[in-house]
Amino acid sequence: MKTRAAVAFEAGKPLQIETLDLEGPKAGEVLIRNVATGVCHTDAFTLSGEDPEGIFPAVLGHEGGAIVEEVGPGVRDIKVGDHVIPLYTPECRECSFCTSGKTNLCQAIRATQGQGLMPDGTTRFSLNGKPIYHYMGTSTFSEYGVLPEIALAQVSISAPLEKICLLGCGITTGIGAVINTAKVEPGATVAVFGMGGVGLSAIQGAVMAKASRIIAIDINEGKFELARQMGATDTVNPNDHSNPIQEVIVEMTNGGVDYSFECVGNVNLMRAALECCHKGWGESVIVGVAGAGQEISTRPFQLVTGRVWRGSAFGGTRGKTQLPGMVEQYMGGEIKVDEFITHTMPLEDINKAFDLMHEGKSIRTVIHF
Amino acid sequence: MKTRAAVAFEAGKPLQIETLDLEGPKAGEVLIRNVATGVCHTDAFTLSGEDPEGIFPAVLGHEGGAIVEEVGPGVRDIKVGDHVIPLYTPECRECSFCTSGKTNLCQAIRATQGQGLMPDGTTRFSLNGKPIYHYMGTSTFSEYGVLPEIALAQVSISAPLEKICLLGCGITTGIGAVINTAKVEPGATVAVFGMGGVGLSAIQGAVMAKASRIIAIDINEGKFELARQMGATDTVNPNDHSNPIQEVIVEMTNGGVDYSFECVGNVNLMRAALECCHKGWGESVIVGVAGAGQEISTRPFQLVTGRVWRGSAFGGTRGKTQLPGMVEQYMGGEIKVDEFITHTMPLEDINKAFDLMHEGKSIRTVIHF
Repeated sequence: MKTRAAVAFEAGKPLQIETLDLEGPKAGEVLIRNVATGVCHTDAFTLSGEDPEGIFPAVLGHEGGAIVEEVGPGVRDIKVGDHVIPLYTPECRECSFCTSGKTNLCQAIRATQGQGLMPDGTTRFSLNGKPIYHYMGTSTFSEYGVLPEIALAQVSISAPLEKICLLGCGITTGIGAVINTAKVEPGATVAVFGMGGVGLSAIQGAVMAKASRIIAIDINEGKFELARQMGATDTVNPNDHSNPIQEVIVEMTNGGVDYSFECVGNVNLMRAALECCHKGWGESVIVGVAGAGQEISTRPFQLVTGRVWRGSAFGGTRGKTQLPGMVEQYMGGEIKVDEFITHTMPLEDINKAFDLMHEGKSIRTVIHF
Repeated sequence: MKTRAAVAFEAGKPLQIETLDLEGPKAGEVLIRNVATGVCHTDAFTLSGEDPEGIFPAVLGHEGGAIVEEVGPGVRDIKVGDHVIPLYTPECRECSFCTSGKTNLCQAIRATQGQGLMPDGTTRFSLNGKPIYHYMGTSTFSEYGVLPEIALAQVSISAPLEKICLLGCGITTGIGAVINTAKVEPGATVAVFGMGGVGLSAIQGAVMAKASRIIAIDINEGKFELARQMGATDTVNPNDHSNPIQEVIVEMTNGGVDYSFECVGNVNLMRAALECCHKGWGESVIVGVAGAGQEISTRPFQLVTGRVWRGSAFGGTRGKTQLPGMVEQYMGGEIKVDEFITHTMPLEDINKAFDLMHEGKSIRTVIHF
């Protein structure tokens, strides 16, 4: 069959809208039709060429909201007409990672996913007979796509797909880092670095966790109004201070915060986020993705005196298990999604979505197919 | 009064045995007579001049076993004749750190202790009218000493002080890092870097925690017999391998260990210890003390993919609360101490103890006053 898709032919170049050939689902696989997709910084990161795992030509995109069109042999839990969110972190419930109870990082299809391939080692997208690679196992910048069943979370059919697609990455990553990874407790103090979609979602995660003080940090003050709407109690622009930002936060919190979250992908901010934590118990969670080869560093004394350094991928969320509940929370008004959508546009305009992001003018653009 | 003491007059020079003047206890303070003291790498570290907090001239030493000789006004819980272990990490049970329930890092007397002073800002040691500074709030290389009550753990009078003095630092640090900080669970796999007193104690902590596999790592194979006696299931000499040690450990454990402990103070080993942990859940604990200005580094991807980086000071142990029980565990055969004591000698020979340590010939030398 054919599918419209935005194709990244090479790093640093705009996407091109093409009509691709798409092979249908094999055993354990599902054909979906994306109704909408968010455009996330991680797509831009890979498109820039900074991502060491980036492969071209590929169909990017990983924040989809989709309807099931066809199921392959052996598919058990998903049927035609179901509404689904594609999962770049799948949940097979059988591998040693899934069964450990300690992580959401299912490894069932990790090797092929990292190579831009389906679990059987093939690509299903092609153009003029030449393969076009998959991306993060999701490729939601294509209207139609084929995914393994373990990479689809089935969600309420009454939820608007053009909204809840954002639960496929950024919003869930931010909320989950607070709730699943850090397990912030009521009354705790929290600092969030970077007010993009993920950082703003960490703010709302901190509100859900009943944090007593939530400090939003960004050099773009245009983000602060939404940060306050999400529940930030304080906003700080590092450029307003001559001291390093970690010292500023330590001073304004009488010794440092209980939890901090780096939602930018800047290794210097990752260090600042650790060092603004309270001696004895402060925990810092790296959520942002740094460029290839970049390293974090600090004095070991920071850890020996009781700080903890963690990271979080997809907010520690088990997609099949937890996303249906998060969609219910959205429907019940507990999770804000609509507020993140600053722009919508058709697939043909997708390069504008990247421009808006780079200019800091959008939180999230949602592409409607 | 007078006291015999080994004095560090300046960095890098041997200690000198002197008879010092000692002022008696003030309010909330206690005069103790050290019966024995261990000689620890941290003493050598400070004596070397590498310790940014090092102050000279000072009486070093922090692994004491002592008897209470006199108590000052207002001392509540300690009486003459009690057997005590001096605590370089005190436990006031009143500061925000003690009452947090999250850390053992009591801050009640931190500021003055770091300056080599008693809580009232004075030194009690002097020689020819000139002040000699305290060290780690303990200065156990002096026969007599004055300490605040909050820095003394009262222990069983039937336990031999010339043995349990080692619970004042190294052994408790190693066991505690496993039990209190990492909270290693039964069946877990563990790697310990460095088979000094602390690392060997981390091995026995892992045995107490019922770890399934305990890998001892050192470049001095002379340490391996004792490591095996303590309970190590595997021994690895990094010099036997051309690959980085983290890769060696990951390969021999099918993906990495559940917990690792750096007990050397080498920032490169701290990185190796983190990176030999299992993706998804491995936790690494920094126990060793690095030189001034040295930094740890790694790729943030190590944390984002689920590893956790922690540190531990005094093994996360609350001295007044937990040391009495550890002494009982020693008496009951659950904690090994005697095996660590490779040499004993009088105070006059204390420089030999440092020589033996630097030559890698001793685990612990205990000085008998």
